[in-house]
Amino acid sequence: MDEHAKKTALRMITYGLYVLGVEHRGELAAASINWLTQASFTPPLVVLGVKKDGRTFALLKASRKFAVSFLKSGQRELAFAFFKPARVEDGKIGGYAYEIAETGAPIISQAPAWVEGQVLSIDETGDHAVVVSQVMNAGVKRHAAPLTLKELDLNYGG
Amino acid sequence: MDEHAKKTALRMITYGLYVLGVEHRGELAAASINWLTQASFTPPLVVLGVKKDGRTFALLKASRKFAVSFLKSGQRELAFAFFKPARVEDGKIGGYAYEIAETGAPIISQAPAWVEGQVLSIDETGDHAVVVSQVMNAGVKRHAAPLTLKELDLNYGG
Repeated sequence: MDEHAKKTALRMITYGLYVLGVEHRGELAAASINWLTQASFTPPLVVLGVKKDGRTFALLKASRKFAVSFLKSGQRELAFAFFKPARVEDGKIGGYAYEIAETGAPIISQAPAWVEGQVLSIDETGDHAVVVSQVMNAGVKRHAAPLTLKELDLNYGG
Repeated sequence: MDEHAKKTALRMITYGLYVLGVEHRGELAAASINWLTQASFTPPLVVLGVKKDGRTFALLKASRKFAVSFLKSGQRELAFAFFKPARVEDGKIGGYAYEIAETGAPIISQAPAWVEGQVLSIDETGDHAVVVSQVMNAGVKRHAAPLTLKELDLNYGG
């Protein structure tokens, strides 16, 4: 395989930016993700790619539920804040106000929309886990153009 | 769950457009898809959501390999051509010139880039199958801004 072509082709995939929030036994964690796609209408399924070596994945794996906050165009700082491990301090997570969703997972208050999911299966073949899940709850605060990976202007690895 | 919020939130996810090409025992099929995400760097994994009731999925399931052609901005007609069942006629598929990739699957000649994959697992829980696969080959003809679902301006269901 032509490694350069693989990298270049895969970088042409369009992604939005999301904050994955999890809770297990009172412990909260959150991390920015971009590998997310819907995968069925009925039941409503979404698939996430989640870095396996972080605390967010550990709690997700233990609790098997999560909330995904959708970021809107302009929320670059917010996305960057959750690329590093996010601490809960002064009622904020990673420096941002949050609310607790039905699953117990944190949703970012500034996010225009969110969904909550129940994990159906986890495939740990790769460096990121493939998490297949069913959407159990959703909320929309306002319509907004999504923040995209392109807008982040990262030198995106792999 | 608030069904309207679920629908609205899920529609805020950003997608590109792709033509999934498959081959099994000399038979070819191709269909437009938008539910696609990378899910690991090492090994390089991609996950596709594929409609279960079409011929493309039947051949994919039988052969366990495929090619995904990436569409670029402006290729709306091409995307629409593969929303309906595509026939092979006069050396074209769905009316478009194609090439045969290493897997035997068709790639659309006009597509700026493509990847080929080997299926690792298929989850048929939903109305679309969750196809986890490893990228085995890739090619880039030119850099191009991707065609997005937004550019298609569909009244996107679910």
